[in-house]
Amino acid sequence: MGEGSMSIYWNQTVRDITPYVPGEQPKDRKYIKLNTNENPYPPSAKVLEAIGRAVNDSLRLYPDPSNDELRDTIAAYFGLKRGNVFVGNGSDELLAFAFLAFFEPTGAPVLFAEITYSFYPVYAEFFHIPYRLIPMDDAFNVPVEEYLRENGGIIIANPNAPTGKGISLNTIEQILQHNEKHVVVLDEAYIDFGGQSAIGLIPRHSNVLVIRTLSKSYSLAGLRVGFALGSEELIEGITRVKDSINSYTVGRLAQVGARVAIEDDAYFQETRGKIMKTRARVSARLEEMGFRVIPSKANFIFISHAKYSGHFLFQSLRNEGILVRYFDKPKIDNFLRVSMGTDNEMERFLTVVATICKKGM
Amino acid sequence: MGEGSMSIYWNQTVRDITPYVPGEQPKDRKYIKLNTNENPYPPSAKVLEAIGRAVNDSLRLYPDPSNDELRDTIAAYFGLKRGNVFVGNGSDELLAFAFLAFFEPTGAPVLFAEITYSFYPVYAEFFHIPYRLIPMDDAFNVPVEEYLRENGGIIIANPNAPTGKGISLNTIEQILQHNEKHVVVLDEAYIDFGGQSAIGLIPRHSNVLVIRTLSKSYSLAGLRVGFALGSEELIEGITRVKDSINSYTVGRLAQVGARVAIEDDAYFQETRGKIMKTRARVSARLEEMGFRVIPSKANFIFISHAKYSGHFLFQSLRNEGILVRYFDKPKIDNFLRVSMGTDNEMERFLTVVATICKKGM
Repeated sequence: MGEGSMSIYWNQTVRDITPYVPGEQPKDRKYIKLNTNENPYPPSAKVLEAIGRAVNDSLRLYPDPSNDELRDTIAAYFGLKRGNVFVGNGSDELLAFAFLAFFEPTGAPVLFAEITYSFYPVYAEFFHIPYRLIPMDDAFNVPVEEYLRENGGIIIANPNAPTGKGISLNTIEQILQHNEKHVVVLDEAYIDFGGQSAIGLIPRHSNVLVIRTLSKSYSLAGLRVGFALGSEELIEGITRVKDSINSYTVGRLAQVGARVAIEDDAYFQETRGKIMKTRARVSARLEEMGFRVIPSKANFIFISHAKYSGHFLFQSLRNEGILVRYFDKPKIDNFLRVSMGTDNEMERFLTVVATICKKGM
Repeated sequence: MGEGSMSIYWNQTVRDITPYVPGEQPKDRKYIKLNTNENPYPPSAKVLEAIGRAVNDSLRLYPDPSNDELRDTIAAYFGLKRGNVFVGNGSDELLAFAFLAFFEPTGAPVLFAEITYSFYPVYAEFFHIPYRLIPMDDAFNVPVEEYLRENGGIIIANPNAPTGKGISLNTIEQILQHNEKHVVVLDEAYIDFGGQSAIGLIPRHSNVLVIRTLSKSYSLAGLRVGFALGSEELIEGITRVKDSINSYTVGRLAQVGARVAIEDDAYFQETRGKIMKTRARVSARLEEMGFRVIPSKANFIFISHAKYSGHFLFQSLRNEGILVRYFDKPKIDNFLRVSMGTDNEMERFLTVVATICKKGM
């Protein structure tokens, strides 16, 4: 079917929706991939060994639909209980389930920032949840007062994407206290790179749902595992959604790999430390080249240059075999989101950027 | 939270829903598992080898969100094109996506049999799709005329679960021709054990969506892969749903394993052949013992006995370490659904059943 054409078989929602478009996953050519916030370091060797051992005849059997062993591992790591943990097929699935469990098509709007993970408005539209975008200033700050207005729930990416900006624990607690009747979802996909997690607030606040992924800080984007942490009633709500859609969302190999990834804390600390160091170094070098670099708590940086447009830089980098993410959207169409690669990859990136800027002048 | 209690954070849909309950996956004890229609034979050795090779550093990268290589393999096997194939995280997810793509909350009811896969009414309730149950006779037949009434779509499990009864290709084509404006979903989870597939009708009927799984006939329940086949417009519709919920539903290891499973046709033919032979033998032996055995085209049989209640048999088998599926529902509460195990497992099953029947008398 041609672009934009519709089928008589699609229902109205599917006709109306503009689906999310993930970053490019190139097949043909060896790019330096700085466009989808993957971790440049491999998964823990212990994780690969454990998955390898699990590739056996037991794959003929269904996985545990409630992921109990993995939930116990995650709960122990964070000082919580099994009943505070839900596991899913990547954090996007968890976000979708949270919209389906806690936000109401009739009622006050769900609040989220005007510039944040672009899947949120897709979920809201697709599930017919009213929403209101919170305006940001030019430094991509969100005034906390905006989150204290009447709402049917709140979703905040902390650190935010694609800006990388973190939000303080004090601010989060203020928001939670003002929204005791509604759920506040904290999307902590990037929290392990320097942000302040809200997990410690879970025992005091039954309305906070923290969503995590193993795709970034655990180098396991290809395995598809995310988890949600919150009060037992929130976990039970999201479980009811899962059991109304798909009994077995997480396969046996993903369960095993995720468990060992959480357990191998030393490797996790080492790789996230390296990425934060790289981020500091690359940010400083780009600022020397005249770039504006939004202070980042994530494994990417959000950058712009007064002289060279975001689209020009994106295209020029692509021509040189470097993929970064460009968003053709108001307020951010002059920015690039650049995932942190290895030090070698980032040296190459900096060299190419320097060359582009020289040529461009 | 206690059974039946509600949280103020759940929306109305989550409060109202009664989620699907999958068959038990025991953790503690060695049962003979004849309760969730898993394949008693291991996955193809070639599949395990290929997955093992894929357990490497590339797990740090996202999988191909559009599953192109796997779709090409499936398309080639069935003589279709990539655009006719959608891949998902097990067939339950595909069924949920089909409800979200093709059935309309406002409009005529979706039709399905009163006794069929018990997830269908859950999807309908959860997504607010009106539906009408088609009554069946005592032999679990569905009169085709019932499917020719006004509807907003149709879903048929062929072979049906939990009865195992197949429906003929002629009947399916008759239904398709009478429903050109609405989608007819054929859930062919069990088709490889003797049923007549509707895949050959796809080129002539743009309203048929065939849903398959690798969980049963490919011995890969633990890997989580299902696929849907249909016209390009149906595949595009279901893809729009996926891209409004979760960009990456199928991980790298699942993509690789599924591809090799489809390619290793010799192993597939061998194991499904063995299961059909076992089914014939076990069915005959049970009939000799006075059981009613519904003629099955699936990898399970649906049985009842005039003298011993379904619940008594279920409990007695469980006490002897054999799990079968019992449904406490009108019209089928005297039946057991028994998955086909290995020949040794089924010998043990038959021996235990004979003993129970002797004791019970």
